[in-house]
Amino acid sequence: MADTRNLGRLLRRVHLSGTVSRADLAERMGLNRSTIMALTAELSAAGLVHEERPAVTGKAGRPSLVVRPNAEGFYVLAFDVAVDRLVAARVGLGGAVLERRTATRSRAGADLETVVSVLAHFGQDLRKNAPGGSVCVGIGASYCGMIRPEDGTVRFGPDMGWVDQAFGAELGRRLGLGLHVAVGNEAHLGALAELERGAGVGFRNLVYLHGDVGVGGGIIVGGKLLDGDAGYGCELGHMLVNPYDGRPCGCGSAGCLEAEVGERALLDAAGWPPELFGREQIGAVVTAAERGDESARTALRTVGDWLGIGVVNLINLFNPGIVVFGGMLRDMYPGVAPQLRDRIARNVLPVSRERVRLCTSALGDDATLVGAAELGFAGLMANPLG
Amino acid sequence: MADTRNLGRLLRRVHLSGTVSRADLAERMGLNRSTIMALTAELSAAGLVHEERPAVTGKAGRPSLVVRPNAEGFYVLAFDVAVDRLVAARVGLGGAVLERRTATRSRAGADLETVVSVLAHFGQDLRKNAPGGSVCVGIGASYCGMIRPEDGTVRFGPDMGWVDQAFGAELGRRLGLGLHVAVGNEAHLGALAELERGAGVGFRNLVYLHGDVGVGGGIIVGGKLLDGDAGYGCELGHMLVNPYDGRPCGCGSAGCLEAEVGERALLDAAGWPPELFGREQIGAVVTAAERGDESARTALRTVGDWLGIGVVNLINLFNPGIVVFGGMLRDMYPGVAPQLRDRIARNVLPVSRERVRLCTSALGDDATLVGAAELGFAGLMANPLG
Repeated sequence: MADTRNLGRLLRRVHLSGTVSRADLAERMGLNRSTIMALTAELSAAGLVHEERPAVTGKAGRPSLVVRPNAEGFYVLAFDVAVDRLVAARVGLGGAVLERRTATRSRAGADLETVVSVLAHFGQDLRKNAPGGSVCVGIGASYCGMIRPEDGTVRFGPDMGWVDQAFGAELGRRLGLGLHVAVGNEAHLGALAELERGAGVGFRNLVYLHGDVGVGGGIIVGGKLLDGDAGYGCELGHMLVNPYDGRPCGCGSAGCLEAEVGERALLDAAGWPPELFGREQIGAVVTAAERGDESARTALRTVGDWLGIGVVNLINLFNPGIVVFGGMLRDMYPGVAPQLRDRIARNVLPVSRERVRLCTSALGDDATLVGAAELGFAGLMANPLG
Repeated sequence: MADTRNLGRLLRRVHLSGTVSRADLAERMGLNRSTIMALTAELSAAGLVHEERPAVTGKAGRPSLVVRPNAEGFYVLAFDVAVDRLVAARVGLGGAVLERRTATRSRAGADLETVVSVLAHFGQDLRKNAPGGSVCVGIGASYCGMIRPEDGTVRFGPDMGWVDQAFGAELGRRLGLGLHVAVGNEAHLGALAELERGAGVGFRNLVYLHGDVGVGGGIIVGGKLLDGDAGYGCELGHMLVNPYDGRPCGCGSAGCLEAEVGERALLDAAGWPPELFGREQIGAVVTAAERGDESARTALRTVGDWLGIGVVNLINLFNPGIVVFGGMLRDMYPGVAPQLRDRIARNVLPVSRERVRLCTSALGDDATLVGAAELGFAGLMANPLG
């Protein structure tokens, strides 16, 4: 019987690549073709992958069989708790979102009970719709706050007013599937998703900035998520960029990056009234600036410069290959890119400036949901036949 | 024959622990005692370690043999190029500095030729003094600037005015030992030395701030040095802490952490005239403040607050277990510790504040030299019998 580690590596490769030939698998994994054949046979016997003849390639000779993930047979439930919406999805092996449910929600503090109850309802509904005989292999959730990785407790979710709420445990109980719910911070999961399936494929060092109402971060160092001693690293939104004259921050401090570049900072600077808020208003400021509105332009210059200062610090610290802007920052990006480039040119050390790329999230608003799904698949990848 | 990897692990363990019993080695390495015995026998046959009866322990039963590194038989040459001094040392297997040479140097720009010539002279002298039959197994050097890891070229050494100087290659040529000179940035090497032999033993996440004239950094993430895409990460001295009103920085920018907390920032703030500079003057300001000098106190409060802002950002980003202050910052630390603690209490997220410790370098001014020696030993540890 093939060893678990190589089975997991192969399944993961198929999961990330989609349909892939045995020959490609052999080359990418550095294993010979007979080993690949044996591993594939085991995964195929367990129903996790299908082997089939490829479409006609036009090449001479006998084509290598292709392997594809059994997307309908094995799936995870993925949940995304963002400030302005709740999303649940059934995501098949291979990573496709097969079905989803979304609820927009008011920003009034939502308690644990309400959130879990909506998500559990969505989850049960998605499960009912799944094809007969298909297997739910894991559950992952993304949350807009700081998470204790061991048990999925929300330590601090300032935008929803949560402190020490047993989110993962409670959602698991309410779903009643006998499966553990793995929970991660939304920006950490967004970073991992971009690394594996988005703008960061092929990079080893990546900084992901995620705008929700505030600003979170996920930082990939040498191919791995920076976690720190207790899993609370990457809090780039709480870099002090304006320490002596800063706007108050939800964390209790002032002058943090998220206080200076978050949703409200831009809308206030542009003179938008407090009744107007949300993602679409960020887009509206950018559009207004493009049309020549002076206050919108000034607001984007100011906020863009604070964001640029934060990005400069991150590039000097991490020497990343790529910096990715996700969530609300994706909408803001076109309006602030000139300021970012200007700050980088002026303040990043030349050696680190040489090759860094800036871009928006390739997965769009699904980055966090895709990351949550990957968290749900982690157990299967570690032990495919377990 | 035992495998190279375990031979290297065992030698490294003896190298870091000094004299250690076979029983301890078995436990710490998770190998059984007969494997340890076989590995030790190979290293002993190569002369790298000695096995001997331990001193009487008072415990009943037959004591486990102890293993100790052959410090006189195998050594590296370690070099340290700091802003105000050049150091060379012969460091024995096991890490003891057996002999050293030091030259203080003026701050006037020293060219490559001068520096290499002094160091090569020291190196040849140290080698002549080494016991007959002893073997030089590697050469490591620490430099106060940005290094291209592949070939030891100094990309940017602002304090000495060096740009793209082939330091490692030139020193190797002049020493004429046929050995490669491995070069690292001083703060990177200081961080690794503190992790392995200093204040950071047992930690997985560590931030090391090294004050020379400027401020460098070495950051350990999950037990490994953060390097980034090209080896230029960790540049914490170039975080922008005072972007709109900052002092000019040697990098061409302004308001960088090192511009606000470097040697000249403190001495200027304290009203010291430009003729007074160097490490001892930093200590003099701290002493003056302790004696009640108001301008020295104000200067330390100002500089301490900028340093505190930088430290806050680093703790929020890295969630480290320990933050270590080395080089000139070790002298400054007693005078700025209250400001650091105050900033941390006010601006670090509670989850990351819970367990972080602050301290000065346990290896003192030898941190960078010890790091350079470890770089020199790396080849031997990778392949002890090679």
